[in-house]
Amino acid sequence: MAPAGPSARLAGLSARLEELGCDALLVLARSSQDPDLVPFVGAVHLGECQLVAPRGGAPRLAFLTPMERDEAAATGLALVTPEDLDHTRWQSEALEPADLTAWVAAQALQRSGLQPGRVALAGHGAAGVIQAACARLSKDGWAWVPGNGLVLALRKQKTAAEVEAIRAAASGTCDAFRAVARLLAGATVVDGALWLEGEPLRVARLRAEVSRVLSTAGLDQPKGNILAPGDEGGVPHSTGTDERVIHPGEPIVVDLFPRGPLFFADCTRTFCVGDPSEPLARAWAAVRSALQLSYERSTPGTRGWSVQEAVCAHLTAEGYLTPISSPGTTVGYVHNLGHGVGLDLHEQPIFKKVSGAEGVLREGDVFTLEPGLYHPEQGFGVRLEDLVWLREGGGLENLTPLPYELDPRAY
Amino acid sequence: MAPAGPSARLAGLSARLEELGCDALLVLARSSQDPDLVPFVGAVHLGECQLVAPRGGAPRLAFLTPMERDEAAATGLALVTPEDLDHTRWQSEALEPADLTAWVAAQALQRSGLQPGRVALAGHGAAGVIQAACARLSKDGWAWVPGNGLVLALRKQKTAAEVEAIRAAASGTCDAFRAVARLLAGATVVDGALWLEGEPLRVARLRAEVSRVLSTAGLDQPKGNILAPGDEGGVPHSTGTDERVIHPGEPIVVDLFPRGPLFFADCTRTFCVGDPSEPLARAWAAVRSALQLSYERSTPGTRGWSVQEAVCAHLTAEGYLTPISSPGTTVGYVHNLGHGVGLDLHEQPIFKKVSGAEGVLREGDVFTLEPGLYHPEQGFGVRLEDLVWLREGGGLENLTPLPYELDPRAY
Repeated sequence: MAPAGPSARLAGLSARLEELGCDALLVLARSSQDPDLVPFVGAVHLGECQLVAPRGGAPRLAFLTPMERDEAAATGLALVTPEDLDHTRWQSEALEPADLTAWVAAQALQRSGLQPGRVALAGHGAAGVIQAACARLSKDGWAWVPGNGLVLALRKQKTAAEVEAIRAAASGTCDAFRAVARLLAGATVVDGALWLEGEPLRVARLRAEVSRVLSTAGLDQPKGNILAPGDEGGVPHSTGTDERVIHPGEPIVVDLFPRGPLFFADCTRTFCVGDPSEPLARAWAAVRSALQLSYERSTPGTRGWSVQEAVCAHLTAEGYLTPISSPGTTVGYVHNLGHGVGLDLHEQPIFKKVSGAEGVLREGDVFTLEPGLYHPEQGFGVRLEDLVWLREGGGLENLTPLPYELDPRAY
Repeated sequence: MAPAGPSARLAGLSARLEELGCDALLVLARSSQDPDLVPFVGAVHLGECQLVAPRGGAPRLAFLTPMERDEAAATGLALVTPEDLDHTRWQSEALEPADLTAWVAAQALQRSGLQPGRVALAGHGAAGVIQAACARLSKDGWAWVPGNGLVLALRKQKTAAEVEAIRAAASGTCDAFRAVARLLAGATVVDGALWLEGEPLRVARLRAEVSRVLSTAGLDQPKGNILAPGDEGGVPHSTGTDERVIHPGEPIVVDLFPRGPLFFADCTRTFCVGDPSEPLARAWAAVRSALQLSYERSTPGTRGWSVQEAVCAHLTAEGYLTPISSPGTTVGYVHNLGHGVGLDLHEQPIFKKVSGAEGVLREGDVFTLEPGLYHPEQGFGVRLEDLVWLREGGGLENLTPLPYELDPRAY
């Protein structure tokens, strides 16, 4: 498979538009950070804008604010300017948002040489505005086909520049894990609880350290984070209670998924200060070997679901329940193996049983591998999650190269 | 005017639905943080969900994931559960996103006792999904009216709890200004540049301090920030170059607009270490008096545009160009006076010339007042921005009570 790049993406887009019987893709966006727009415009700063990509032709960007002309020019795309769109008129007439959206779309489509016909629709925005704008344009003969999935599929294979952006976010994420490990390793045991800096070591202290390190690395946490000790870590979606004091022998699941300027990273480690219980130690070893197996099975052309099946078989053999052996279980392995990561935290490839091309691992994909075992009643969860890139030639590169040990002193 | 609250909001909603000839409001949301959904559900954590608010009836929330049942219950609303929606079926059949959205909406509307008819549509989502889902439902007789503006209007008057959430975000924002002032006040002059901690003081150092303090206060910066020295501060939208070293006598415009869990804050101060030039000192005094005038004129029932006109008249008398005297000017006062702040950084009230009820200041509104003067060629900009709450009884409370002085030692 050829390396992904802007021209390969455009070729892929044209092929898909042809399959859908569409003349063009129209992306409606509230800002240039819309994940359906970034693959075309890159890292620029624009407010509301629209993009038309005619089948077989070059994309054209419409923007609404004269102040943004330099940013728009930096995309290198053909432009529809605020002056082209007669922006002083709509400002003085205070057009309704849906009328403005429809007007800009009509101009952008026409200036791209298109006649009313079938158009794939992508981007994101206000529901009432989108519905009304599309209904208005339908009266002029434009017909709409859902197009968000089309762009999502184009985004699956990352370009070299995109991998670098994800790598940078992953590197800052690794710094945060090392900082958490340092605090845990520096704690002492007082009356059966961890103490640091003259007070009991609470989840809040670790969370503040995570925020500090991530923000220093230029990363945001728009989706939050997970620092879940003991039984809280036994429920995969528990974010962890700030007031909880960490205890020796108790695991803490740390799952961080921050975003750089545009791209997410995602990584999980589980720490335990002092000796783990026998069930915890055994679960950790099973998860570690499941992760190793996931690496071995994640080859180009493999379905994500096949890797999940292999992991389930392995964990079943180790004596644990899985979603295949016990659908709906909340004990044992209770979730899916991974997900693509990019402009969205969860994107393609997917690891679900019911899936088409979006469920097949390909060169250029960036995704997580994150087996885990959970026992909320016994008070533990353990999860290990790497963010990996399936390189050209088929090798997996770990973008989150951290130790896997429970002991924070290993970091 | 009665204090805003959930029941007052519902009464206001019913009145507006009646005006629009609609039987209900439908909110489509990718998460419970959708700004059109928060006024109904509060601070809960749900993924994709929908809300139906029938005219004169109680709202009903549909959610899609069984794991979220506790969060959904915490809203206190009538619910449409994943089991009601037969979620195992759609998972096994891998419904297209638009079909799933249409199915959930149809169920939520029917379970709210509605027959096909006119529905106001709000919320946000993927454009192709929204268009296709609405087109499908239209075939069953549902007709759509744009409803995002309706919810935006309901959000204008803040509840007491909302003001407290904004106040908390504003308080953390003030901490960040004090921290920036401390760094500036602690710098020394070496060869005509500011130095701190053994190196030239760069914008990047101040920006890192802002991030550190905001993250400690639990605030994100989803829209970035502005730390713009000298001529960069002379262009209102310049975010400031990290590598720039700060010089004595040069102003730096600091505009921070972070978000707490749900609500934004917004504040600007301008600093200058050492003696300001005469034009800068004069501009600062004019901006300071313009801000004072804005406070005096921002009374209940006043149009935001009227306050903008008063500020323009004042600054014209002081000898500066304004958007009224010189439309399109990039020197002098070049922008609008303020904007509402809440779940969005820019919401109602608005200060534009062409506006209806959304342009009238009312008790319960939270908005910015932010006069500024700019001269990019002379290498300066100065802006002072407070976030204010128009209290019951008509008094303005400054939620960002910081000094206004250029000298950081005043902080």
